Amino acid sequence: MLIVQKYGGTSVGSVARIHAVADQIAKLKGQGHKVAVVVSAMGDSTDRLIELAREVCPEPEPRELDALLATGEMVSTALLAIALNRRGTKARSWNALQLPIETTAQPGRARIERVECRKLEDDLAAGVVPIVCGFQGRAVTGDITTIGRGGSDTTAVALAVVLGADECQILTDVDGVYTTDPRMVPEARRLERVSFEEMLELAGQGSRVLHLRSVEFAARYNVRLRVLSSFEPDPGTLICQEDVKVEAPVVAGIAFNRDEAAITAANVPHQPGVAHAILKPISEAGIDVDMIVLNAPRGGRVDLSFTVHRDDYARALELTRAAVTACAGAGVTGDDRVAKLAVVGSGMRSHPGVATRLFETLAAESINVRLMSTSEIKISVLVEEKDLERAVRALHRAYGLERSASN
Amino acid sequence: MLIVQKYGGTSVGSVARIHAVADQIAKLKGQGHKVAVVVSAMGDSTDRLIELAREVCPEPEPRELDALLATGEMVSTALLAIALNRRGTKARSWNALQLPIETTAQPGRARIERVECRKLEDDLAAGVVPIVCGFQGRAVTGDITTIGRGGSDTTAVALAVVLGADECQILTDVDGVYTTDPRMVPEARRLERVSFEEMLELAGQGSRVLHLRSVEFAARYNVRLRVLSSFEPDPGTLICQEDVKVEAPVVAGIAFNRDEAAITAANVPHQPGVAHAILKPISEAGIDVDMIVLNAPRGGRVDLSFTVHRDDYARALELTRAAVTACAGAGVTGDDRVAKLAVVGSGMRSHPGVATRLFETLAAESINVRLMSTSEIKISVLVEEKDLERAVRALHRAYGLERSASN
Repeated sequence: MLIVQKYGGTSVGSVARIHAVADQIAKLKGQGHKVAVVVSAMGDSTDRLIELAREVCPEPEPRELDALLATGEMVSTALLAIALNRRGTKARSWNALQLPIETTAQPGRARIERVECRKLEDDLAAGVVPIVCGFQGRAVTGDITTIGRGGSDTTAVALAVVLGADECQILTDVDGVYTTDPRMVPEARRLERVSFEEMLELAGQGSRVLHLRSVEFAARYNVRLRVLSSFEPDPGTLICQEDVKVEAPVVAGIAFNRDEAAITAANVPHQPGVAHAILKPISEAGIDVDMIVLNAPRGGRVDLSFTVHRDDYARALELTRAAVTACAGAGVTGDDRVAKLAVVGSGMRSHPGVATRLFETLAAESINVRLMSTSEIKISVLVEEKDLERAVRALHRAYGLERSASN
Repeated sequence: MLIVQKYGGTSVGSVARIHAVADQIAKLKGQGHKVAVVVSAMGDSTDRLIELAREVCPEPEPRELDALLATGEMVSTALLAIALNRRGTKARSWNALQLPIETTAQPGRARIERVECRKLEDDLAAGVVPIVCGFQGRAVTGDITTIGRGGSDTTAVALAVVLGADECQILTDVDGVYTTDPRMVPEARRLERVSFEEMLELAGQGSRVLHLRSVEFAARYNVRLRVLSSFEPDPGTLICQEDVKVEAPVVAGIAFNRDEAAITAANVPHQPGVAHAILKPISEAGIDVDMIVLNAPRGGRVDLSFTVHRDDYARALELTRAAVTACAGAGVTGDDRVAKLAVVGSGMRSHPGVATRLFETLAAESINVRLMSTSEIKISVLVEEKDLERAVRALHRAYGLERSASN
C-alpha cells in the first residue's frame, strides 16, 4: 500500500515523541508499505513564533508572518528525517518551496492549487520516505504562504490525491472520531467508520478532530481518510464514502460548540432584501454568520435570528442595530450565553423520527430550544449554555449512541 | 549609495536588538541610500538547533542538518522585515531557495556559485529593503545548503558583488579591526583602514572579526568592505585595496591563535616525496595543516615540523608516527601546549627589519621561538602557550602599534 501519514504537533512535540514517530514509520515501511509523511510544527512552536512576531509588532506584516511560521514545519521535518536516517530508514525532508506546493497568494489563508510531486515520487521509487512540511505553500510570486491553522491535514490529503495513495492517515492525540466529546459524555463511543458527509457536518459543527477543508478535499477526490492515535496502536476511525450496502446508523454523532452568540432582529418588514440588508454589513465586517432562522411572517413582519462567534458578538450587535433602525424594525435582542449542538447522521434521510425524538428528549429535560435549523443529515439547535451538557448527554442516550450499531 | 549591510547574530539577538537594527536601517534609508540587508540567525539559535539535532542523533544526516539550520536565518529575516514595516519602511524577507542563492552541493560547507538578484533589484527599484538570509544556499538538487560558520559575511559580499554595491558593511559586536585583541593588549588600537591582503593574513591567523572567505571574495571582486559596530555609531574599519599613494604602515597588526599543536618528524631521509608521504595521510584524514617548516638537511636527513589544530593533535600524531616508521625516520615528537602569533603588514615588503625586531623583542623577554615561517607580508612564530600574552604585548609595543601611524 502507498500510505500518506500526517503527524500533528503534539505527536512530534518533543525529541522523545519524534523518535516514537520514527519508530512507527520505520515499522510501517518494514511491513512493505510505501510511506510519505506530512508533519506539523513541534508542539506549541507555531504559537511561540506568533508570540515572537507580536512582540516585534502587534500586527505583523502578513507576508512576513507566513515566512516566519513556515520555519516551524521545516524544523520538525528535518528532525524527523534525522531520526529516521538514524534508524537506517532513508528519509528526506521537503518544504513547500522545494517541491513546490503551489497556493493562492493570500497570506495566512492560502489555498493549495497544485502539488508538484516529482521529487516525492523519486523518493518513493528509491525507497526513501519523503517528509513534507504541512501547513505551508508557495505563491506564484515566490512568497511563502500558510494555509490556515490545521492546514497540515489538508496538505496530507492533497499529497494523497496527487500520489494516488491508498490511504491518508491523520495521526493525532485522539484515537478517532467519537459519537460526541468523551470529556463531556463518558460513554461516548469511537466510530469505526463515518461517511465524508457526516464528518463534514461534525467538523463544521465544532468537532475538532479534523480540519474541515481537509475533509472536503478528501470527499471531493474520494481519498480514504483515517484518523488514529499516534500514541497507541489502534485502527482509529475510517472516513470514506457512504457504504450503500450497509444501512447507515440513524445518528452518527453529536457535535457541539459553546462559543456562540445569538442575535434577533425583531419585527422587521417582511420585504425582499431585508435579510440581505441586515446580514450584508456583518459579513462585510469579516464576521461569519452561522445559523440563520427566519420565522413565519405575521402581519407583514418577521423575526430574523442568527448566530455568530462569541468574540464577534458586540460588533455584530452594533451593526444589526444600525441596519434594523434603517429598515424601521422593532428592535434587536441578543444573547451571548448560548451554545449550539448538532445531531448528525446519514440515516436521517430515511428516518424522519429524529427531530421528534430530539424535541421529546429536550422537553423531558425541561431544556428550551432557542433556535433550530435542519439540513438533510443534520439538526442543529441553540440552547442556553448552562443546558448544553445535559442536552448532549440526554440526546446521546436517547439515540442509543453508546451501543455499537452497524458501525 | 547602494549599501549592503550584514548584521551578525548578536546584533539581532533579541526583539530589542531587532528594533535597534531596524532603526539603523530606516535611518540609512531616510538619508537617501538604497539598502539591502543580510542577517544571521538570532543570538545562539544556530547552536541551539545543532544541539536539538544532536539530541535526535549524535551525527545528524548532513542534508537534514542544513535544512534545520537554515530556519534560523528565516526567523531573523522575517522578524526584521516585520520590524521595518512597522516603521513604515517597506521591507521583504528572502531566503536562499526563493532568490535563489545557488551553491555547490556539499552540506555544511557549500560554496556560493551564483546569486540570482532579480527579486532584490525589483525590491531596490521599488524602494523596498530586501532582507536576505545569510549562511544558506540552494544546491542544484533543490536541497538547502549552508556555507559554513560565519558564512553570512560571504553572503553579504556576494550580494554586494552582484548588486554592484558601493560598500558592504559588516555590522557586528566589535567596532572594527584592531592591531591585536584588545582583551589581551589594552592599548590595542582600531585601524581606520587595512588592505585586503593584511586582512586576509589577520583573518587566516586567528583574527575572528571576519570570515576568511568573505575577505577573499571581497578582494577578488574589489568590494569596499567595512567592519563596524551595530551597537555604536562609528565608521569602523575600512578594508579595501592598498592605497599606493599612502605609504602603508610597516606592521598593521598582530594576530594570534592559542589552539595549536606542533608535530616534528625528526631525522627523516632527505629525499623527494618524504614530506608528501608524511603530510598526505593527515590531509586525507581531513586535518588542516598550518605552518610547515623543513629545516636545512644535515647528513642526508631533515626535520619536518608542522602545526595542526589542537583537537586534531592525537590523530595527527598517530598518522605521523606510522608514516615516519614507514620511511625509517628517527621518531616523532609533539607538543600541544603551543600558540601561534603572526605579525602582519604590507609595509614589510619594503622594510626588511621587521624580523630582526621580532627576534630582538622576544629574546629580550626570554621567549623561545619554536617554529617560524614567513610570507611576503607576514611573519608567523610558534611559542609556548604560557609565553603568548607576553610575546604579543611586547611586540605590540616594539612595533609602536599603540600610536596612530599613517592609518
